[in-house]
Amino acid sequence: MDIAFRISNPDFENTVRNHSLAQGFLKHIDCVLTTIRPGYIEAEMPIDNRHRQQLGFVHGGITATIADVVAGFAGFTLVRPEEHTVTAEIKISYFAPGIGSRLRAIGRVVKPTRHFHFTESEVYVVQDNGEEKLIAKATATMAIIQPKS
Amino acid sequence: MDIAFRISNPDFENTVRNHSLAQGFLKHIDCVLTTIRPGYIEAEMPIDNRHRQQLGFVHGGITATIADVVAGFAGFTLVRPEEHTVTAEIKISYFAPGIGSRLRAIGRVVKPTRHFHFTESEVYVVQDNGEEKLIAKATATMAIIQPKS
Amino acid sequence: MDIAFRISNPDFENTVRNHSLAQGFLKHIDCVLTTIRPGYIEAEMPIDNRHRQQLGFVHGGITATIADVVAGFAGFTLVRPEEHTVTAEIKISYFAPGIGSRLRAIGRVVKPTRHFHFTESEVYVVQDNGEEKLIAKATATMAIIQPKS
Amino acid sequence: MDIAFRISNPDFENTVRNHSLAQGFLKHIDCVLTTIRPGYIEAEMPIDNRHRQQLGFVHGGITATIADVVAGFAGFTLVRPEEHTVTAEIKISYFAPGIGSRLRAIGRVVKPTRHFHFTESEVYVVQDNGEEKLIAKATATMAIIQPKS
Repeated sequence: MDIAFRISNPDFENTVRNHSLAQGFLKHIDCVLTTIRPGYIEAEMPIDNRHRQQLGFVHGGITATIADVVAGFAGFTLVRPEEHTVTAEIKISYFAPGIGSRLRAIGRVVKPTRHFHFTESEVYVVQDNGEEKLIAKATATMAIIQPKS
Repeated sequence: MDIAFRISNPDFENTVRNHSLAQGFLKHIDCVLTTIRPGYIEAEMPIDNRHRQQLGFVHGGITATIADVVAGFAGFTLVRPEEHTVTAEIKISYFAPGIGSRLRAIGRVVKPTRHFHFTESEVYVVQDNGEEKLIAKATATMAIIQPKS
Repeated sequence: MDIAFRISNPDFENTVRNHSLAQGFLKHIDCVLTTIRPGYIEAEMPIDNRHRQQLGFVHGGITATIADVVAGFAGFTLVRPEEHTVTAEIKISYFAPGIGSRLRAIGRVVKPTRHFHFTESEVYVVQDNGEEKLIAKATATMAIIQPKS
Repeated sequence: MDIAFRISNPDFENTVRNHSLAQGFLKHIDCVLTTIRPGYIEAEMPIDNRHRQQLGFVHGGITATIADVVAGFAGFTLVRPEEHTVTAEIKISYFAPGIGSRLRAIGRVVKPTRHFHFTESEVYVVQDNGEEKLIAKATATMAIIQPKS
């Protein structure tokens, strides 16, 4: 499904990158945006013991975080410079345990509307054999926040 | 809604606490379980810059994590010693930005079944005036994993 | 959780009732609103073969419908006369098969905001012994639609 | 994403069709399965006043129903003859109002597991100009029910 997006912030790439770099939590878990396009974001992070639960798998909270981040910033690419987006709600389905050394996630706006954007994301783990495996998918509603007038 | 749960692991409290303490990610964000009862869990964590996004609010990934943790361990209190639980899916609705110094979350099993438990959780922020504010609610399906035979 | 709602339409009760009576689908399945209060709606319908699936249980689509109806109209009680609400998204968890002669559902606004209302609903079946059983719970985001200016 | 499914019921096509024809609710709304393949289902129904809400759009409950039906039967194609599937939970996102004369939906199993199948569905309306428009997407967890032993 290819969508032609209307760009409301010509400098969206810098705006999105700067906002992502200002998130203390993303720095704390070493998550960085690797691709920033209209309505589309990719992010990556290494996986070590800081990101795992007791069985050695990626913690569900880490998977939820990167799914939210790529979906949220995908929505953020489309808003005007003075607007923000916030996650109204997100649902994550966990397909398989995350066993590997790296996470990669893709977020897309699948339906932009006036007051919120419908988004989807996919989370992959890079396995020890180098192959990627889809471990989770998410759908989220991103609300557009106008500045108080 | 009061539910009488059947306890399948007499030592559930130690089992749950030990599993939570073995999660590298929970240690990395200073999240600890504070109450462990059948089908019911509370957890807390401080909020500092490690847990925030660019506007100074608690990161949605942190909120999703603590919502998942209390719901997941609530389900884990009810399974047999040789069983595990994993989050099949979770939906989080974000009611308000998290502004404050501490997070507290409550997770409950609202309907136990044979192969999965339906759970709910609530996330509160302790505001600067000391009052708690509900910032998110979640519903999750926790699958029961039997040991491979 | 008791919430004091701001009423934006003094005639909300008639507005909601008239809109519900104008829904061809609700008439087709005999679903009627039985309680209309600020941020709160109850609805009921009989259960016969028109509402069932192949095993004799209430069809999941019927349960989803009544869950959506009570949540949506609960949000609709709070908007201005010229505004509408639409369901942005709804998640329904099915706790038990619906076996009985009547459905009853309760919908509530749990967090009103400027552009959408967070809502929850519960669906009960009246069993043959006359007792009610909770068969499903739902959470939904109801978007507020302003008239085109 | 192409998945090779393991077929556990060689007669799945007849099993699925017969079950769908035995659903009183689907007959009541004129919804029929039009394609039955392993892990994949299509369904259609006409749209008339029985399926609409007060503004003339397809009722959200109808959209939720067809989304659930195609996802549920997609999962049902993969189980053994003595097994059933039930919807554990479904989330539907509504992208646009349904204005037109016919609904078509596609359901897919996106990740089969031992005790439940993750599924997705898309709902399209056939508009008056003959073109299809995507009006909703859903994700659902379909639980596999074994016969009581």
